[in-house]
Amino acid sequence: MRVLELAKARRSVRRFRREGVALGDVLMILEAARQAPSGANSQPWRFLVVSDSGLKARIRAAAEDGERRFYERVSGELREWLLSRGFSPEKPFLEEAPFLVLVFSQARAPYSVQSTWIAVGYALLAAEELGLGTLTYTPSDPDRVAETVGAPEGLRLEVILPIGIPAEDKPKEPRLPLSEICRLNSWNNPCSSG
Amino acid sequence: MRVLELAKARRSVRRFRREGVALGDVLMILEAARQAPSGANSQPWRFLVVSDSGLKARIRAAAEDGERRFYERVSGELREWLLSRGFSPEKPFLEEAPFLVLVFSQARAPYSVQSTWIAVGYALLAAEELGLGTLTYTPSDPDRVAETVGAPEGLRLEVILPIGIPAEDKPKEPRLPLSEICRLNSWNNPCSSG
Repeated sequence: MRVLELAKARRSVRRFRREGVALGDVLMILEAARQAPSGANSQPWRFLVVSDSGLKARIRAAAEDGERRFYERVSGELREWLLSRGFSPEKPFLEEAPFLVLVFSQARAPYSVQSTWIAVGYALLAAEELGLGTLTYTPSDPDRVAETVGAPEGLRLEVILPIGIPAEDKPKEPRLPLSEICRLNSWNNPCSSG
Repeated sequence: MRVLELAKARRSVRRFRREGVALGDVLMILEAARQAPSGANSQPWRFLVVSDSGLKARIRAAAEDGERRFYERVSGELREWLLSRGFSPEKPFLEEAPFLVLVFSQARAPYSVQSTWIAVGYALLAAEELGLGTLTYTPSDPDRVAETVGAPEGLRLEVILPIGIPAEDKPKEPRLPLSEICRLNSWNNPCSSG
């Protein structure tokens, strides 16, 4: 089953080759994304595709500024997780990836967040099928990034998807088995996928 | 490109045949869903698969109760849209579909809504590939439904996915062209995919 194969193969990529992606491939990914269902068919997603180096640099600067302030105040489990994974406020992939896709939602549309993230799911699988790596990078201060790119009022930045040929081969993070996250007819009855 | 084909073919289905779906197919869909990325890899999605008729009837009753109260207070554009599409508080698909998948998120996990809806996107495409129809039905009063099924504390009901063989052949709702929802490097520069 192709979707299952792609879903299994796809993992987050944070290092990209600087070259080798055609704009047409990025648009094909968005052709898939725009087919997603949405609340009242409002199609609340809007995309800003960025290939311009200067604009990427400004996006990176705005994002890293937000990250630095976030890292100063983060605590608890999330902080532990971030440190254990070697995360930092530096986001070089925002310049290294040949394309960034900034995904916005129309804040006032019904179920705009939910619908837009279905579209993101479609985009991730489409990219995987094209052999392209992606990351769902949610800036700590999305408004700051939205302002930097001059986003029209009413649009909320949901996520930045850097897109490019992977320059790393990290394994996929492990997933919980279905028996831990799925129940059949009763909360006492774990799904078993045979 | 398979993902694009599936995304284009997939449309919301509200009428289902009562038979003809194997539990294994539903679990295959969730095998795809659980591969989705999530904030800090928290995998905040939880699934309750329902095939039991009595439980489906109780879910339907709880959902319709919430819908009736919603329809009493809805107004404006959304009301117009609902009426123009012939929507009503009646949700027979909650009993007619051979399976319901109730999708929950762990409310306190980072980016739990966003992550869970990526997983929903994966599930929709997986179902399409298996020839199964789905609907992303978001109850107007999700807490009422969650309570009815005895959901553990901390889980928020995001959506119910009825799954079954389509018993209708309605066309897909039209989508906006990429040129209207996508810009390249500047808000004045529409993407053109051709």
